[in-house]
This record gives sequence, structure tokens and C-alpha cells, in this order.
Amino acid sequence: MIKAGIAGATGYTGIELVQLLHRHPQAALHWITSVNSAGKPLSEVHAVPWNYPLITLEEAYARAAEVDVVFLCLPHGQSITAARTFAAAGIAVIDLSADFRLQSAEAYRRWYGLEHTAPELLPSFVYGLCEVNREKLRTARLIAVPGCYPTTVNLGLYPLAKAGWLGDRVIIDSKSGVSGAGRTAKQPYMFVEANENMTPYAIGYRHRHIAEMELVLNGAAPGGACHFTFSPHLLPASRGILSTMYVRAPDGVTETQIRDLYAATYAGEPFIHLLPAGQQATLRHTVHTNRCAISITADDPGDPACRDFIIVATEDNLLKGASGQAVQCMNLAFGLDEIAGLI
Amino acid sequence: MIKAGIAGATGYTGIELVQLLHRHPQAALHWITSVNSAGKPLSEVHAVPWNYPLITLEEAYARAAEVDVVFLCLPHGQSITAARTFAAAGIAVIDLSADFRLQSAEAYRRWYGLEHTAPELLPSFVYGLCEVNREKLRTARLIAVPGCYPTTVNLGLYPLAKAGWLGDRVIIDSKSGVSGAGRTAKQPYMFVEANENMTPYAIGYRHRHIAEMELVLNGAAPGGACHFTFSPHLLPASRGILSTMYVRAPDGVTETQIRDLYAATYAGEPFIHLLPAGQQATLRHTVHTNRCAISITADDPGDPACRDFIIVATEDNLLKGASGQAVQCMNLAFGLDEIAGLI
Amino acid sequence: MIKAGIAGATGYTGIELVQLLHRHPQAALHWITSVNSAGKPLSEVHAVPWNYPLITLEEAYARAAEVDVVFLCLPHGQSITAARTFAAAGIAVIDLSADFRLQSAEAYRRWYGLEHTAPELLPSFVYGLCEVNREKLRTARLIAVPGCYPTTVNLGLYPLAKAGWLGDRVIIDSKSGVSGAGRTAKQPYMFVEANENMTPYAIGYRHRHIAEMELVLNGAAPGGACHFTFSPHLLPASRGILSTMYVRAPDGVTETQIRDLYAATYAGEPFIHLLPAGQQATLRHTVHTNRCAISITADDPGDPACRDFIIVATEDNLLKGASGQAVQCMNLAFGLDEIAGLI
Amino acid sequence: MIKAGIAGATGYTGIELVQLLHRHPQAALHWITSVNSAGKPLSEVHAVPWNYPLITLEEAYARAAEVDVVFLCLPHGQSITAARTFAAAGIAVIDLSADFRLQSAEAYRRWYGLEHTAPELLPSFVYGLCEVNREKLRTARLIAVPGCYPTTVNLGLYPLAKAGWLGDRVIIDSKSGVSGAGRTAKQPYMFVEANENMTPYAIGYRHRHIAEMELVLNGAAPGGACHFTFSPHLLPASRGILSTMYVRAPDGVTETQIRDLYAATYAGEPFIHLLPAGQQATLRHTVHTNRCAISITADDPGDPACRDFIIVATEDNLLKGASGQAVQCMNLAFGLDEIAGLI
Repeated sequence: MIKAGIAGATGYTGIELVQLLHRHPQAALHWITSVNSAGKPLSEVHAVPWNYPLITLEEAYARAAEVDVVFLCLPHGQSITAARTFAAAGIAVIDLSADFRLQSAEAYRRWYGLEHTAPELLPSFVYGLCEVNREKLRTARLIAVPGCYPTTVNLGLYPLAKAGWLGDRVIIDSKSGVSGAGRTAKQPYMFVEANENMTPYAIGYRHRHIAEMELVLNGAAPGGACHFTFSPHLLPASRGILSTMYVRAPDGVTETQIRDLYAATYAGEPFIHLLPAGQQATLRHTVHTNRCAISITADDPGDPACRDFIIVATEDNLLKGASGQAVQCMNLAFGLDEIAGLI
Repeated sequence: MIKAGIAGATGYTGIELVQLLHRHPQAALHWITSVNSAGKPLSEVHAVPWNYPLITLEEAYARAAEVDVVFLCLPHGQSITAARTFAAAGIAVIDLSADFRLQSAEAYRRWYGLEHTAPELLPSFVYGLCEVNREKLRTARLIAVPGCYPTTVNLGLYPLAKAGWLGDRVIIDSKSGVSGAGRTAKQPYMFVEANENMTPYAIGYRHRHIAEMELVLNGAAPGGACHFTFSPHLLPASRGILSTMYVRAPDGVTETQIRDLYAATYAGEPFIHLLPAGQQATLRHTVHTNRCAISITADDPGDPACRDFIIVATEDNLLKGASGQAVQCMNLAFGLDEIAGLI
Repeated sequence: MIKAGIAGATGYTGIELVQLLHRHPQAALHWITSVNSAGKPLSEVHAVPWNYPLITLEEAYARAAEVDVVFLCLPHGQSITAARTFAAAGIAVIDLSADFRLQSAEAYRRWYGLEHTAPELLPSFVYGLCEVNREKLRTARLIAVPGCYPTTVNLGLYPLAKAGWLGDRVIIDSKSGVSGAGRTAKQPYMFVEANENMTPYAIGYRHRHIAEMELVLNGAAPGGACHFTFSPHLLPASRGILSTMYVRAPDGVTETQIRDLYAATYAGEPFIHLLPAGQQATLRHTVHTNRCAISITADDPGDPACRDFIIVATEDNLLKGASGQAVQCMNLAFGLDEIAGLI
Repeated sequence: MIKAGIAGATGYTGIELVQLLHRHPQAALHWITSVNSAGKPLSEVHAVPWNYPLITLEEAYARAAEVDVVFLCLPHGQSITAARTFAAAGIAVIDLSADFRLQSAEAYRRWYGLEHTAPELLPSFVYGLCEVNREKLRTARLIAVPGCYPTTVNLGLYPLAKAGWLGDRVIIDSKSGVSGAGRTAKQPYMFVEANENMTPYAIGYRHRHIAEMELVLNGAAPGGACHFTFSPHLLPASRGILSTMYVRAPDGVTETQIRDLYAATYAGEPFIHLLPAGQQATLRHTVHTNRCAISITADDPGDPACRDFIIVATEDNLLKGASGQAVQCMNLAFGLDEIAGLI
């Protein structure tokens, strides 16, 4: 049994991890932390029956040796110290924040506006997109779990990028359930504000999550860089992300070729659900699962010269987009069956 | 044209009033206030196109003479000073808080735990339940608009109470949309917490709103007092209250007699919608209207001796339960058509 | 008072029209029809208190002379006979179906797959997009109310099209509430299927509504035709459409110029709400109103050479996208204040 | 590995069972049937990646020997023939319909209005309320899974009934998510009809589910029968039932005694979550789990003589209220860990 701790267990990704590890056949939870609720049992903070005591992060540091792996569900900027402390104690660190996703302090400064205080650790972190970095993850001790939006975009476009078929511009229209905004009480995420509403926010070439798209997709592309226009929208649903992506393939590339490319790239992947022609990926394909569903549609199926395609990718933002993928990373890093606890 | 001001225009009852008065054919809005957003136009605070400037309450005091009537949409406890100030300026005051609903400082202390600082004004306030107090409202200058929950309960049970058929105990199971909790950001009212959820809260003989039920129903009853067990629940909807009420009528009273009683009591009422036998009042009967819908069902229709009845009453908590009823009160107090601006 | 009839009053656009005309200060409803519920009062079919009797379409034909105008809320393909019959009786016809929107039988055949059986009437119908065709509507007797999706797209892009700034391709990612799918019971629109879900459907250059975009926007454009990629999505909300539109303006056109263009085009329009820089149009700006809200965002505001813009337009699909716009058309055609009954 | 089949796999309880058995460590799915979709893979009918072929019920009869147990997710009235056929083939039968819940053909006729065509099987069926009938279930071969509503009521009141503290009348106000109404397209369960709405239906002493309450609770009670007033409401949520129950305990019984009674009755129960004083059971305590959460509140905590209590019980209607409980029954009947596959 792998012994696990969670730093920051009362947010939405934290409580999701508690549930995943509670159910996991080869892992056990040893401690969980909370800033605001330390000293209380978890059952007072979430509607769960488990009375795990919430401890402070400092107490967790002192009890680092009790665990094999710690999951960090802390806000951006606050993971760095925790990661350094736990790494120094020899524990595997799986960080769900953005702090170690980008591969340079310069990129972190540009997109997050923060000075990175542990740049020396950045090269040791593996970006935890399992379908792309599986081999590296098998030996990783420090893992940066991808962001929720970029996971749909990167899984949805990776085959095209790797084949050099992504073109020079992609338009990404994403829709996310409200849990993506976190559990802190803020007016835009109140029920009455978000219900029966839809809100675009931070649209265009400005959203931080573009950094991860450039990292994975431009990193995989054999040719030049692609420009990503990314428009996230808040959706009146609790969970789930649906990204509708508009790409222009090179002349002569057909829908059949693209389908074959995706099928080959993702052959045997346990968590990729490629939809057949005529079916669209929806939130229901993935919510409450660790899967990513992908569908491919030609803009004008009646035009044989049509090079414009619409790729739709969906996931549960708290599972494949966060805590599920984190457990998938743990499974890989600890040599377990990749799907353990995630069926 | 009646000149109106609103103190506290950025909460849910405030913005609803802005829209009602904007549409009202015989009223015009002269100023609106906000504590947190004074200085901004309304269109920055709500998704409306109107650029009314938000002013402070102090500025409103200085501009009291510009208006004929002020609506107070302030938190409980904060209406008292405003009411006294505007009343002293000779303006009609329609207060949507609880501060002047109860008729004694002692009752206010008991139910709200606050010392009333303007007890001398209490006798001048008319409780604005139009269907019950219509004649008093025609000459009122100070009006306390009823609470949202009690409006469904009082309208739903008033005929029985007045006839002395209410019995000595009523069980009231109420369900309210989330807007009833106000617009301040608090975790239980976040989308992810309230969506796909239902939460009982403050259930039993403890909720402040019971005070208004005792006031109206025990006040109307010819016999002894009735005990109200009141269980409110938070409903995953933005608007609307549905109260399911369990009453035991005196021996010999039939469903037909009860239907006749309701029909007689509410004959000609423009905002009471009595459902025929076999139909149930639902939220959709009333949401986005100023109506209250009421349905009556015998517990066991096959038993002629059945004395147990289930009364369901619904309303839009922001309209008939607050701002709509406030405008109805204004219409009465200013001699307008009672339905003006409320169709 | 204008005397009005409604053919097809029990669907969502029909019941919305009933409510609008009930409230309208200068119109009165004389009869309403239903195929499946003729003989019943309206209050048995919808949660409304009005007992208007539902009559058959044939009865309505016989009573055509009682009204000045008839609104047709019939399925596509079924409006043609009704329109011809009522037109022959000398009544103004406002058709909410698609049957008379396109200006040729050939276009109708191509997009709807149906043979038009009254092609001779097509030239007499005015396309009821009030902001574009206002003058023609003032004298119209036969009006085809625009489709819900195209109203957001056409109002959102009309200034660019007219200026010749639309470019040769626009990507339109639209999200619609479920009421757009009508009131007939079908599994994809069941609560459990649509709730907590999002579904793309009929995406790409295939959706019938593209015909109206080509009609209005390519019709207005001084230069060549624009290709529209249109991806509708079903949204877990009852009402509202939000269209996110990706356009590339000609070299040298700045965001300021675009804002000025929109402000000039829509100056004085009572139902267009242009959002200032930094604010996004949301569903809440328009739901339960007859407004269309529009916001404009540069893809990369930091790049002065950026020519890519994101236009967001929202509306209530049952009001500005259907019944509200139909009443606006009636107001224009009968010489009333354009906003009467629509505030 | 237990070999299982499902008759009726495309409704909501059927697809839930597919997922539970797919995840179950000691069970495997061998065939699944569908009336309307036989011949298609499951992935065409539900948003799941599994291509299990759907077969007809007749094919399943022919392949009965392939499985150890069959789950029947068929409509009321249609389970009888299937149960008889599979039972004759020597297979364990777990029926999720109401056909074998009541213990006599007479009760079935009275509450369901149908003549029972296999009354000889009724005595062999065990009512599958695991917390009450655990020992009988360990040897059962024929199991009738309880209804969704009665499971909350029976688990919520069983300790009181057994102690003789239930009194002679209980009022039960229940709220259910829409999935309880099944997957067949019907207008009241359309998104637009159920969203932002709440609807009481079949309220009073008329609902069939009262039969199961009388069976379990009056069956357990040492004294006389209790009368149940049961008011179900349709809730704008996909899943979950919350029942608010109003009971009057005998003189002298205190809240503490009641809490102790529940704690003793349910000691060690893996799926009962008793909330501590001051916390209310909510849907979130149980949705997407096999748990039932129960909270206890005195009507008037300030009155030591108060005998009125409010019991709230919640569950996921598709899990503890149907398919989860069915798997729990299978676990018991096949000697597995009771929680296998249900964590």
C-alpha cells in the first residue's frame, strides 16, 4: 500500500483526491491538511462520512516521513515552498498547482506574473500528461499535473501537432463547469449569478493556460509555432470542460487520414475515448470519469477539398483535468496498474 | 408620475425593484443607493443597460425631497435609521427588511435578537400583505413588506385561519430558490455547493419567519393559537418558493367546503391563482410573476371522513415575496391601479 | 387596440407571445389555436392563470376577420398554408417559422429540403430583423421573423459586414438554452440528459441557420461572400443564446475603429446593448428581455497589429430571438412605439 | 468472478448497474438486453466507451446458463415473466421493479392495479433492504430491491418503528431528482419543464410507495399501525432523494434517547451516515454514493417537553435507491464483502 498525504484537502481537487485515494485498492491516506479548517474533522467541512482530522501544513512537514507521496492542492504560488520541503524529505511530490508546469522561471514570470523561488527544481519536474509523457512519468519523483483546460486542448490536438498538421492558428472555444473556479466564495460563482447564465472571461491570447498549450503542442510540432486563440466560458454546470477547436489542416489531408492518425496515436490508451464519425463528444461522456472524449468533424463534409476541421474534446475538470490525472501519475510513478482506482 | 428612490439597489430585491419601476407606467426612479458600489453606474454592478449612478445613503438623505417614496432594500437592523430619516422628511417609506414587520419591540428582540431603536414608529407601519390589509394600505405612509416565506404561508392558510379551521398545529415544509439568501458571496450559496443539492436549514420551531405567521394567522384566527413547525430547504433554483402545508381541519369540514372558502376569500384578487382540483401549484405558476398560486388536496380522497389536507402555495420570492409586493403596496398607497407595472 | 390571434399557442414561442400580448398596452388577444389541445383552456396546458380557450386552426380560419394580425408559431413546413389563408383574408401575418425567411424557393429547397408551396408569396415577406429592415417593416403586411441563432450572429456582425470588414471566413461558436429545441418530448432534451451536460450538434457548414447569415451579412457586404463555420451547442439552461464569433478584420483596422463603427451603427437602438471595453456580453444581460448584448475583444490586446477580434452576442432566444422580435415587428408595422409591451 | 446479466440495460438504473458491475472487482457482465436498442452497441445508446452488444430478452433467456445472476431493470408488470423464466433456469434473480416487493397478490392488486401472474413466487422473494433483512439476504436466490422513495423513509424511520416510537401518523415530504421518473421522453421531465421548477405530484395517502412503508415500518412496529401521509415533489436535479419526515414520539422520549437508538440500530452499518446534532442530511452527503444520510432535529429544542422530531434522510435514488442497493444485495447473497464495488 502506498502511503499518501494531501496538502490542501478541502478545496474541490483536494476532496476529489480524498475520495479517489479512499477507493484506491493500493493506496491509503495518512494525513490531510487545511489552512482554514485545521483541527476539524473532514466531515465538518465536506459532506462526507470520513472523520480524517485536518492538520496544518507545518504538522504535515513534521510527519513527512509517514508517507511515500504527497499531493499538493495548494493555490498557485504556494506550492513552491511545500514542494521544496517535501522533496527535501525524500517524498514523491505530485503538484496540482501551476507552479512547476512551465519549464523555466522566465515563462512562469511572463504568464503568472510571479518570481519563481525554486527555479532549480523546475528541470526535475515532469509534466504529468500521461498519454504524452508516460515513459518519463514511470521514473518521476516530482510531477506537475497539467491544468484542466490545457488537458482537453493538448489531448485533443496532440496527434495533429505531432504530425505537423496543426497549421499556424487554432481557435479554441472552451466551456467549463463552475468547480474550475475553486471553492472560495466569490460573487461570480454564486448559484444565482452562474445559473441560467454563460460568461466568457479572459478571452483571446491572454489566458495563462495558453502557456501549457504552447509547451505541449508547439513542443511536439516538427515545424513552426502555432498561435492559440483561447476563449474560456463559464458554464452553468458543476463539473466538466468541453473545448471546441477549429483547425485548418494542410492541403490534401482528409478526414479519414485524421481519424487514422488519432486512432494510431491513442491505440490502447485506457482513458481516451475516440468517438466514431457522426458522434460528438459531450460532457456526459466524461463527467465523473477519468476519460477524455474526442470527436472529429469536417467543417463541410460535402466538400472534398475542405481542410477545416472541428475537434471537440471533453473531460471532467476535477478528474482527468486534475485529481484523476494526478492519481494516474502516481500509478505510473509507483509501478502500479495505470488504471488502478480510476475505473 | 410617482418619484421613487431605492436605498440598497444592488442586492437581488433592489435590482428587481429597479426593473419593476423602470417598466412601471406611473413611476420613475430618481436615485438609487449602494454601500459598496456608490460612484459606479448600475450597469457595472448588474447585467443591465441602465447607467443610473449609484449614490451613498447619505447623499440620498440629502436628496430626500426629490422623491415621493423610498424603498428600503437594506439588511435587517439597518433599515431603522433610514426609515426614521426618510419618514422625518415626509416621504412614504416602503421597507423590505424585517425591521418593522413585527408589531412590538419585544417581538423584534425575541425573534431577531436585536434591540429596536425606533419602537415609536412601529405602530405607524402597516404590514404590507395586500390581500389581507388592503384597506389599511390605501392610506399608509409607512409600509413593512412581508417576508418571502411568510407570504406563501400566510396567503396559503389565511382563509382557513380566518374561518377558525386551522387547528392547533400546522407543518410547513418550504423550499426556496437560492436568491432568497441574498447576493453576498457565501460558500453555501456557491453554484457548486447548491447545484444538484438540497439542504434543510434552521428547521423546526426556530425560524424567524414564524413570527410573521403567528402575526397574520393567529391574528386572524377567532380561536386559539396554532403552533407552526416550519422547515425551510434550499432548492437548486434561482427563484421561487414552494410551501407544502399539512393541516387538520375540524370534524365535518369537507374538501368542497374548503375550496369554496378559498374561492370566496380570494374572489377578484388579481394576484391569487387558485388551482382547480387535481392540479398542483408549482414554481412555474408564479416565477417571474407577482402571483401566488395555491392548490388544495385531501390526504386520502377516498376517505369521506378525511380531515387532513395538503395546501401548496408558491410564489416568486423576489416578486410577490418582496419587490413585486412592494410595488403592489405602492400602487395601493398612491391610489393607482393595484396591478400597474405588475402584469 | 390591435386585435391579435396566435396559431400554435402551446409551444414555447406561442406561450411567450401570449404573455407578451397579455401585457401589451395596445394589443389584445382574440383567439389562440392548438393542434393537440384544442378544446381545453390554456391554463390546463401551461402554468398560467388565463383560461383562453384553445381552438383549432380551422376555427381560426373561420374567425380570421376578428383580428388585425395573426402570429404563426407553427413548425417549419406548416406555416405556408396558414400564411396563405390568413393573407388572403386580408390580415397581417407575422410568421415565426422559417418558411418565409429565405427569399427564394430554391434556397428553401437547398437548406430545408422541402418544396415551397407558396413561392409567389416569398417576395411580399419582409425579413423581420428590425435593426436592419426597420423602414421596410413599417409598411409590411407579411413578416418573416428571423431565426434565434441568426439574430445573434446577424446583429453581432452586421456593422462589420456593412463596412466590408468581415473578411472571408467567420467562425461562430454558439451555445443555446434547451427551449430552442421546442416543447415536444424528445430524449436529448430530457432534464437528466441535458442537465450537467453540453452537446455540440450539427456543427460546421451544415446548419440551416447559415442561410440567414448569408442572406443578411453577405447581402449587406459590399465585397465578396464570407464563409460561415457555425457550431451550435446545447447548453444546460432553459433560455438564452450566446454566440462567440471569431473574425479577422482588414489590415489597419483597430479595436477603436470597430467600437466606433458599432456605436454609430446602433446609435439610438432601444434593444441593442453595446458593452464597454473590458466587459463581456453574458446571457444574464439579455435573458427575460428583448435585448441583444454585444461585446468586442481583441485577440491580443498587447499587439497593435492584431487584426483578430472576438465578438460575443447574446439574446433570449424566446424574446429577441423569436416572440419579442415578433412583437417588435408588429409595433413597427402598426405604427406603434417600437418598444410598446417590450420594456 | 460472479457472472452477471442485466435485463433492461438502457434505462437509468440499467446503465448505473453496467457501470457498477464494470467496476466491481468480483463480478463480470456477460450480457445486457434492451427492447428498443437490441442489436446496437451500448456506446450508441449511452455516453460510455463500452461496446457491449445489446441483445433481446429472448436471446437472454437462451443464454441464461451463462450467468450466475440476472438483474431485472424492467418496467413494473414486465418483470414477472422474466423472473419466472430466469428462476426456472436456476439463476439468482435480483428484480429492481415493484413486481415482487409486496408480499401478496392482493397488495399488488390494491396498490398497482394489476393482477399478479406469478403469486406462487412471492413468498420466495426477499425484500432487499439490506440493513433490515441482512440475514435473509445471505441465503436469498430471489430478491426484490426496494423502491427509491421507501428506502429513504424506511431507513430513516426503522429505528423508531422497531422501538414502538413512531406514533400513529407520520408526514413525509419527499423531494426527488428527475432521474426517478425514468428515461422515456415525457413532457413533464423535459429540461425546460423541470428546470427552475418544483412540482408536487400524487401527494397524500395515494402513492404506491406507501405500500413499502407499511410493509417495513408497520411490520417492524410492536404496536398498532402508523398512517403515512406521503408527498413527493419533483426537484430540479438529476439525482437524489431527500425525505423530510415529521414524527411525534411518545411522551418522555428525548432527543438524546432517539440519537442513541439510531446509533445502536445502525452501529457498524457501512452505508448509513448518521449526522451529529446540528448538521442536516443533504443530497450532497449521498449523491454518487451508496450511502443513506440521516439527521435528527427536535422541532423546538428549547422546549424540554417537545415530542415532535424532524428526521431527514437522503440517498442517491439510482444507487442506494436502486442499482447500488441491488449490488449490495448481490454481495450479500453471494457471500462477498458487502461493500465490494460500492466504495
